[in-house]
Parts: sequence; structure tokens; C-alpha cells
Amino acid sequence: MTTLTTLPPTLYLSAPDMVRLIQRKGLAACLRGVADRIAQDFKRWPEFDKSPRVACHSPDGVIELMPIADAQEFAFKYVNGHPKNTANGLPTVMAFGVLADVATGAPRVLSELTLVTAIRTAATSALAAKTLARPGSRVMALIGNGAQSEFQALAFKELVGIKELRLFDTDGEATAKLVANLVGSGLSLTVCSSVAEAVRGADIVTTVTADKTNATILTPDMLEHGMHINGVGGDCPGKTELHPGVLRAAQVFVEFEPQTRIEGDLQQMPADFAVTELWRVLVGEHPGRLKPEAVTVFDSVGFALEDYSALCFMRDAALELGIGSTVDLIVQTPDPKNLFSALQQEAASPIIATRPQASSAISG
Amino acid sequence: MTTLTTLPPTLYLSAPDMVRLIQRKGLAACLRGVADRIAQDFKRWPEFDKSPRVACHSPDGVIELMPIADAQEFAFKYVNGHPKNTANGLPTVMAFGVLADVATGAPRVLSELTLVTAIRTAATSALAAKTLARPGSRVMALIGNGAQSEFQALAFKELVGIKELRLFDTDGEATAKLVANLVGSGLSLTVCSSVAEAVRGADIVTTVTADKTNATILTPDMLEHGMHINGVGGDCPGKTELHPGVLRAAQVFVEFEPQTRIEGDLQQMPADFAVTELWRVLVGEHPGRLKPEAVTVFDSVGFALEDYSALCFMRDAALELGIGSTVDLIVQTPDPKNLFSALQQEAASPIIATRPQASSAISG
Repeated sequence: MTTLTTLPPTLYLSAPDMVRLIQRKGLAACLRGVADRIAQDFKRWPEFDKSPRVACHSPDGVIELMPIADAQEFAFKYVNGHPKNTANGLPTVMAFGVLADVATGAPRVLSELTLVTAIRTAATSALAAKTLARPGSRVMALIGNGAQSEFQALAFKELVGIKELRLFDTDGEATAKLVANLVGSGLSLTVCSSVAEAVRGADIVTTVTADKTNATILTPDMLEHGMHINGVGGDCPGKTELHPGVLRAAQVFVEFEPQTRIEGDLQQMPADFAVTELWRVLVGEHPGRLKPEAVTVFDSVGFALEDYSALCFMRDAALELGIGSTVDLIVQTPDPKNLFSALQQEAASPIIATRPQASSAISG
Repeated sequence: MTTLTTLPPTLYLSAPDMVRLIQRKGLAACLRGVADRIAQDFKRWPEFDKSPRVACHSPDGVIELMPIADAQEFAFKYVNGHPKNTANGLPTVMAFGVLADVATGAPRVLSELTLVTAIRTAATSALAAKTLARPGSRVMALIGNGAQSEFQALAFKELVGIKELRLFDTDGEATAKLVANLVGSGLSLTVCSSVAEAVRGADIVTTVTADKTNATILTPDMLEHGMHINGVGGDCPGKTELHPGVLRAAQVFVEFEPQTRIEGDLQQMPADFAVTELWRVLVGEHPGRLKPEAVTVFDSVGFALEDYSALCFMRDAALELGIGSTVDLIVQTPDPKNLFSALQQEAASPIIATRPQASSAISG
């Protein structure tokens, strides 16, 4: 029998827990904190064991598993994308995830990640724009006014200094909802009647539409000198938002190149089309924007490392605020080689003396 | 605003719930039920979207995600393998998993899978032996007497008709533990002092050792005519149990060929070494054992479909017995495009009238 070490409990952050956590921390503080954590982790990029996510596609959507690990922690996110869900009152995106110890494999945190995904996506977008957009960018076009739009709007206000939003969505109710939610945010809002109208004069253009099609939201004729494009919605095979000409006219930055080539707007381009991974700009290996009048594109698909960073931020915040409970996901027995004993009502029968070095017959 | 559909709750089966469930159903009934469900699902093999598992290897172990889906359901398992854990009183294998709706992406079941993994592994081994071993097989050598050994022993008794076990483990305490747990099982047990002694005269040889090395537990000189070998422990890159000569001398059967070529004892063989997927035998496409004196090998690595089948069995049993609770993993708002409203203490501000067809400025 080995010495008994107890498994650490698994911290559980439910959806209500996460709402409480974000309300108590404040959404702005969460956006800033997650962006800082993502920046720190992107700067130690080579330390992570990275793989493109595993995706299961069906006619109406996709279900993905997004794993990542460094030498200490393993994290994964479960996330779906079902644009037609909203027609039935269900979310397009639902997510949860886990943090585990690499040394033992023990799961340490189980958390809702639907809200966290919206926060980490917006935080990553804002971090990229802070790094790549022209300094002094104040006006952003926000194309697609669905579930993620408020988070994008507030992250760009908090982290990039955006003051004015120009809004467009094919669903006017979505835009009205976004406007209602941003009343009192201090952002000045202009509701536009077309993408072209929204984009005109914008320093930054964020596209965050949900259709699982090769849409062409942004065309080359809409580009203006020095624009930064934050392409968020083109994030799985067959789902794009940017005309190839937009990519050809721009300096293109990505999260994790092998994944973006499969999932991003980049999927429309030849395999040798040049892109730069954002972390290289953050560590100073690449200058980022080469000239003020250049057009920069952040072709964002969402990378597991961002979820890891956000999970770590939320875990730390939960421990600091005393939010969350624990779950008994793993059965443990005094002798780990005696899993069977977990099923025995009484303690296991006394061990019969046997001499493994010699053969002996026992009738069971 | 779309019509509100509520998300179905996520059923949660904790480790204590699973212990209760297995105790109430009875382990024998669970082994039979899971084996039946696995057989049914293997027979509809082409209906599943299959991919080799995603593995994250570290010096002391591996953490894996095992996804699978048919047109209705998506399932995945989180599972680790850390042989050194037992030295610290922690389990070598810890697992949990999820069942989700393919149509919406909603997670429907979250369950412990450590006990379930032991049950589904033993059930799969017994199903393969029932299909491939000589009829009338009564004596089994059980090499490796750790956490999975009781489950293997009882599955072979229940499903294959094994009456006598010949036991060996380099750790005598593990063997003593197995003997103690099988007292009263009706199996006759012989504790042996070497692999060769245990294997001699056995109809079936089960190897279920844990070392993460290229071990050679079974060598060609130990083979006897008509033997069936159930190789369970050689299940990840760099972890094997069977001498290549054993595979060369046998008809080799596998679960999912692309995965076994990477993870199984098969990893030692050339890419063109012929193997047969078990499902082909179950549907009658392949005869299985070609002659009574042939040696058959089931090179088992554990496939996601078995976890899906076991999860479905346990879910049905939990609903039948009223075991389990629910977890709030997913946040839902009345308007799915208004995720932001989950964070608003009071209801969202009234929607300001806007005319999306024409431009209008609003000060936020």
C-alpha cells in the first residue's frame, strides 16, 4: 500500500458563479486583466504545446475541442458554433473548459466559458489593435451586432481608446439591442444602413458576423489608408468575411498560423501567402505596422492559449473573491491500484498471504 | 426578440453518483450492458465521425482528449495516464467526459469516467475475446494486476466463461490485492512467479501493465496454438507489451486502425502490416479466427466510441434509477443575441428606436 495523497478538489465555476465574478470584478477590469494575461502568455509562446483544435462539423454547426499545455498546466475548451440556434432562442456559442495539472493529470478547475469566450475574444482583438492599429485610432466600425458585439465595443473603448462606433447588422433588432446595451457607456454610436456606410472614415473595422458561409462582408473598395481590420467572424472552414483582395492589400497578422490557414479568412489564400504571428510583434521580433498608411488585418479565429489565459485569470479572481464550489469528478481510493475497492460496500476482504516468488493455488 | 427555448439541463454524474449507480445495477450487469452497447455501436461503425485522440505528452505521462460523434450525439473523454502517480497515492488513470447534442451543441451529460473507463475497457476486451478466442476458452493469464485487473477478470468470467485465472505482476502487493478482491467471485486463482509460468496452458492471455516504456511482456516462445492475446496495456507511443514476433505469428485485430498504428503494439510493425478492425468481424465482413490453432491478438488501445457507448449506457441507467444532479455550465439569456444582458443587474435599458435603413446618430 502506498502513502495516501489526496487529490486536490476540482474548483467549479458555474454560469451563475461567472456572472457574479464578472459583476464583482467589473467587466472593464476583466477585459483589461484578461488582455494583460494573454499578452504575458503570448510572450512565452514557445513554451506551449500547441495543436490546431479538433472540430466536428455538422450541417448546422461545429463542435470543437481546443487543447493547449505548458510544462505545468493543461487546458482545453469545449465550444460550439451553431448560427441557427438563435432562431430557437439558444446561444450560437456555448463553452466550458478545464485546467489540469500536467504532472499528475488531475483536473483542477471546471468552468463555464461562454461569457469568458466573449471576454477573451474581445480582449485578444483589442490587444492586437493596440499593437497594430494607428496610434490615436478613435472611430471603429462594428459589423455584426450579435452576442459578442458589446464585449468588442467595450474592450476597444477600454484598451484602445475608441470613442465612436459606427454600427451595422443585417438584423436591425441586433443593432438596437447593442445600442440599448451601450447607452451610458460613453461611446458615441452611429447606426448605419450598410457596411460601406459604417466603414467610411473608420480607423478600425471589426467584423464579427456569425453566418457559416463564405460571406464577403468587406471588399477592397471599402479600404482606407491606415485602416486596421479586426476580422473575428471568419473562424472555421467555409466561414469567411473578408474579400481576398482585402488580405492582398494588407499586412496580415494571425494567432497560430497552422490553425488560421485552415479556419481563418486566410483559408482563401495560397499556402505561401505571407502572414505574421501576433506574438512575434509582442516580443519585438517583428515591427508590426510598417507605415502609417498601411492597412493591417488581424485575422482572428480564437486560439486555445487565449482560453488558457482567461481561465487562469478567472481562477485567480474566483479564489480572491471566494466564488465557486467544488465537484467530485474523480473517484479516489486509499490504494490507487485498488480502484475496485470503490465499489465494495464494506472494506476489501483481508489480503490472503501469497508468495509471488512461488506458485500457489487459491480457490477464489 | 426570438421565441425563448430553454436549454435542456446538463445531467451531472459525480464519482459518488457513479459508485452508487454501479452498485445498484451490479458490476456484472454494467459489464454486460456496456459490452452489448459497444457491440451495437461497433456494428454501425460507418455512421461515426472518427478521429485519433489528441494527446499531450509530458515526461511523466499523457493527457488525452477523445472525441467522437454520430449524426445525433457528440461525446468526448478527458483521460490521463501517469504511471508514477501510484507512488504518490494518486490514480494512474483519471477520466471524465461529456455527451452533447450535435444539432445545437448543448452539453447534455457530464460524467466521471474513471470507473467507467475500467468497465468499458474490460467490456471491449471481453467482447473481442468472445468474438475471436477459441470457443470453450476457460483459462486466462492476467499479466498486470493493477487498477484495471479486477474489471478484466470479471468481464471475462461474465462474458467469455473464464473459470481460472493465472496471475502475475512484478508488484506482489498488486497481485495480493487482486486475489483479495476476487475472493468469492467463483474464479479459481493461481498466483504465478513469472509471466512464462502464468501464460503456460492459458487459452487467453491478457496483458494490462502500466509502464510507459517499450516493455516486452510477451515473447514468441510463450505462444501456444489457439491462444488469444488481449493486449490492453500497450496503448500510447513508446508504450508496448508484445514482442514484434508475437504480432507476426498472429492474426491481429484492432479497434480503429489509424489510432492503433500510432499507439498500439502495432507501432513496432511496418505500416503495411495487415490488421483487421474488430467491427468488420462483428458485422460479418471478416470471419475473425481462421483456424482453431491460429493465434489471435486484440491490440487494444481504447477508442472513443467505447466511451460514447459506455456514457450512453450510464446516462440511461442514471435516468432509470434517478441518480445524479444537474449543473449550470451554460449561461442563457432571454434573447440569445443579448449575452451581455446576463451581466446587467437590472433588465437591459429599453431599446432606443433606430431606423437601420437610414443613418442616425445617437450619443451613448
